[in-house]
Amino acid sequence: MLRRFVSNNQVGKVVAANVAKSFTKHQTQTLALKSWSTLNAKRTYASKQPPRLTSETYSYVKRDAKYKQLTPTDVEAFKTIIGSKGSIITDEVPSDLDFYNEDWMRKYKGQSKLVLKPTTTEQVSEIVKYCNQENLALVPQGGNTGLVGGSVPVFDEIILSVANLNKIRSFDNISGILKCDAGVILETADTYIKENGNYIFPLDLGAKGSCHVGGVVATNAGGLRLLRYGSLHGSVLGLEVVLPNGEIMNSMHALRKDNTGYDLKQLFIGSEGTIGIITGVSILCPPRPNAFNVSFLGVESYEMVQKVFQKAKNELGEVLSAFEFMDNKSLKLTKSHISSPEPLEGEHPFYVLIETSGSNAEHDSAKLETFLESSFENELILDGTVSSNESEFKNLWSWREMIPESSAVGGGVYKYDVSLPLKDLYSLVEAVNERLEAAGLSSDTDASTSVISAIGYGHVGDGNLHLNVAVRTYSKEVEKCLEPFVYEFVSSKNGSISAEHGLGFQKKNYIAYSKSEQEVKMIKQLKNIYDPKGIFNPYKYV
Amino acid sequence: MLRRFVSNNQVGKVVAANVAKSFTKHQTQTLALKSWSTLNAKRTYASKQPPRLTSETYSYVKRDAKYKQLTPTDVEAFKTIIGSKGSIITDEVPSDLDFYNEDWMRKYKGQSKLVLKPTTTEQVSEIVKYCNQENLALVPQGGNTGLVGGSVPVFDEIILSVANLNKIRSFDNISGILKCDAGVILETADTYIKENGNYIFPLDLGAKGSCHVGGVVATNAGGLRLLRYGSLHGSVLGLEVVLPNGEIMNSMHALRKDNTGYDLKQLFIGSEGTIGIITGVSILCPPRPNAFNVSFLGVESYEMVQKVFQKAKNELGEVLSAFEFMDNKSLKLTKSHISSPEPLEGEHPFYVLIETSGSNAEHDSAKLETFLESSFENELILDGTVSSNESEFKNLWSWREMIPESSAVGGGVYKYDVSLPLKDLYSLVEAVNERLEAAGLSSDTDASTSVISAIGYGHVGDGNLHLNVAVRTYSKEVEKCLEPFVYEFVSSKNGSISAEHGLGFQKKNYIAYSKSEQEVKMIKQLKNIYDPKGIFNPYKYV
Repeated sequence: MLRRFVSNNQVGKVVAANVAKSFTKHQTQTLALKSWSTLNAKRTYASKQPPRLTSETYSYVKRDAKYKQLTPTDVEAFKTIIGSKGSIITDEVPSDLDFYNEDWMRKYKGQSKLVLKPTTTEQVSEIVKYCNQENLALVPQGGNTGLVGGSVPVFDEIILSVANLNKIRSFDNISGILKCDAGVILETADTYIKENGNYIFPLDLGAKGSCHVGGVVATNAGGLRLLRYGSLHGSVLGLEVVLPNGEIMNSMHALRKDNTGYDLKQLFIGSEGTIGIITGVSILCPPRPNAFNVSFLGVESYEMVQKVFQKAKNELGEVLSAFEFMDNKSLKLTKSHISSPEPLEGEHPFYVLIETSGSNAEHDSAKLETFLESSFENELILDGTVSSNESEFKNLWSWREMIPESSAVGGGVYKYDVSLPLKDLYSLVEAVNERLEAAGLSSDTDASTSVISAIGYGHVGDGNLHLNVAVRTYSKEVEKCLEPFVYEFVSSKNGSISAEHGLGFQKKNYIAYSKSEQEVKMIKQLKNIYDPKGIFNPYKYV
Repeated sequence: MLRRFVSNNQVGKVVAANVAKSFTKHQTQTLALKSWSTLNAKRTYASKQPPRLTSETYSYVKRDAKYKQLTPTDVEAFKTIIGSKGSIITDEVPSDLDFYNEDWMRKYKGQSKLVLKPTTTEQVSEIVKYCNQENLALVPQGGNTGLVGGSVPVFDEIILSVANLNKIRSFDNISGILKCDAGVILETADTYIKENGNYIFPLDLGAKGSCHVGGVVATNAGGLRLLRYGSLHGSVLGLEVVLPNGEIMNSMHALRKDNTGYDLKQLFIGSEGTIGIITGVSILCPPRPNAFNVSFLGVESYEMVQKVFQKAKNELGEVLSAFEFMDNKSLKLTKSHISSPEPLEGEHPFYVLIETSGSNAEHDSAKLETFLESSFENELILDGTVSSNESEFKNLWSWREMIPESSAVGGGVYKYDVSLPLKDLYSLVEAVNERLEAAGLSSDTDASTSVISAIGYGHVGDGNLHLNVAVRTYSKEVEKCLEPFVYEFVSSKNGSISAEHGLGFQKKNYIAYSKSEQEVKMIKQLKNIYDPKGIFNPYKYV
């Protein structure tokens, strides 16, 4: 059956959104995701339920007695180091600490009584030296947008927020190399380099209005454009890091090539604050594309999704900048969040969002048009639409970007972020749904069950699936049904149990599903070398 | 003065070399660079002079008595491990060892009496365990094409060649992920993935017909297309490594995203065999472009080279795959090697080679044409030519690729491979020429001077300059004039004294010009942790 392109936006026509320098997609993205706001007062959460203390939910984890409890003398010492009153938050007004103690998911809540917000790297160093000497545990914190409980304390660890390290240090608009403090908000950095030379930050994610540059490096965030710009291991050129003994590793190099010794900075990319606090980042930024297009497609099966991906890789080549997919249930849940018209008229088992970005709007549109027409003629896609202006562009993206929040509105959500070989990517979602249904735990309609549904979406281009189990209430029974099943499944396919969210508190005990005994041994060895007292981000990672 | 495009190949016309799958540039590259051949018998060298023993040239370096001298018992033990006779080369016929003891530059010659060529990772592990136990030093060796003396012994270290670990393990033509043994020749890997899915290896360099995949990873090679595909820290997904204690670190992951623990493999990328022997590599390969264009331009000054680069980055964007430059002297030296017609009729102070590669020949050509026409009209370039077929494409590239060999034909060459901020890149060449001339050591015409000339060329796109000092004879006086001057100059600009060639033996003592005391301390700490007995590649790196 051959059909022409039919949608409520376009009929058989592909028009480029050539928005050049005035392009402001990111701004709107952030508005849509305003719950990620850094403003404490306005912060909303993924779940309506206030979080229980981590120490209660996971009562088998005990506070390690080797860590000293905070004393007034310690607080005075920190005041001496930091100086300014505004940089220290104590428990005088306990609710002032909530933003720092609670994660956005509301799954974890620590009991820290002290937040330190130093304004210089030297202050960070002095704080760490003091903590090391006094055996005070601390948790480095960026924008606190993490999803695995890595950026909040488990017990009474001191929180060291880098939010006040927020200066752009330099930007070279010939080479595209940005140097900035760790606490610069991702979107601020992106806007700065856009306005000073038309560059783009090589990473984009939903939380960009709140998350920090240092935080995305510390957690090796992936995001929406890894397909095009690669991982941070390739684009980060240098780091400034305060080590657990308080020494400052100044590796703020700004060279694309430097083969003089082991590439130390790599150890800290994705180390989640366990062996160093990143205070500065040097990163290579690519030129900002002049033209962006986005296309939203309806697809018959996951097999077809793979075929469309293969074809897109070959035919769109260097202008392909995102290839996202979502299942029917993901789209349905998202409806509750979005008032604008649905991208396609009919329902389809799967949806694909393809973004192209390049230096020439006409060429990009021609490539996309040819690709879409032949995909349609070859019956790889059932229906599709293409953005013809900036507003449509944003609307199409919002259907993908609102899924994480949408999946939590029914009560809560269990989130799994895994890497799998492409062919096996969706089978995990099917297996989990079958398992939950067989156990009588899941129903779209029966409100007496804990689970609404398991949905799947993510970055096909990176082999990265987000499995979200939307629930009415969190329950031990559901957890037991999901874990370790999900991890075992991923392990059996040689996947990763954490593609981009990291280990944090949530996955500390599951690393062996993705790493060999030898690797785990080497990881622990490094932790012990750099942080023999274990004062950095304890109870997590390894 | 406005001039039209004039050259002996093309007049004002840009034609794409759309050579798609039949594209065989690399094949010819290798023929041109046949001196890199792996075949021992046919190997030629950069210098005509046979090398002196490293221990004589650098007599201040002494053999460390802690290493045991090889005994017949040891040789027997290795025979038991490896089995096959063909995998062991002893000093029965001393010249059989020459290929392995001498580097291609002929600057270094070791005195090893034993070459081991295991065929499995387990054999490598057993050999290393034995060496560790017996305090026998060893040098891991790939294709032995390195330029800093890193892959040959200094004294009597055993050579462990991975040449017989040469199997492609798997290739997934949906994801583009290749898994292979370390000893697979780079060109073999590239051809394999081209024929099995039309992919391209994300790295290309002159020595590709001889160098190994494991070797390029161990030395973090950069090469000609880093501008497009990024560094190996981004594209390598997994490694299999034998550690100095003989343990095998199996990290042969094949996932684009995996955030479970410190990214251990990164430590071994660029470690030059000092903390591990890479035996297997998993790497992400991009789709092979369908169309390639190359343009060769004459430019008035280095300042203009930078302007052309900036413009190319903005206008060619995602299809720009190489931006190389060379000075007038580089081109003149190359004439001695190349019989085909010169790219441009007149002489120019600088030359630029631009390569585009993309998925659509017509689009690429249109972009390049527009770019060249406006560059010409804006007087950024003086003259230029564009390849209109495969043969011209190869010819233009050969003018860039033959420079390294050409600079050695007069007798020898001192090679410096440095990173510098773009604006300072060429000033090093000028400073060195002034210095050599002032010392009366250099003359193009006066054959009584040691130095012919200092030339500059390299990867502008990566901030990577190759400074080659072409000499009639090597001399201590010239060396003293060059070093530490070159390193001091680079350090004063916050550059790197080794952009892509590594430290090896040559730059072991100069790391402090590019790395802070703190970094050097951390690098040495890692060396001591993984190789406390120092048996891997001693006298080098740190």
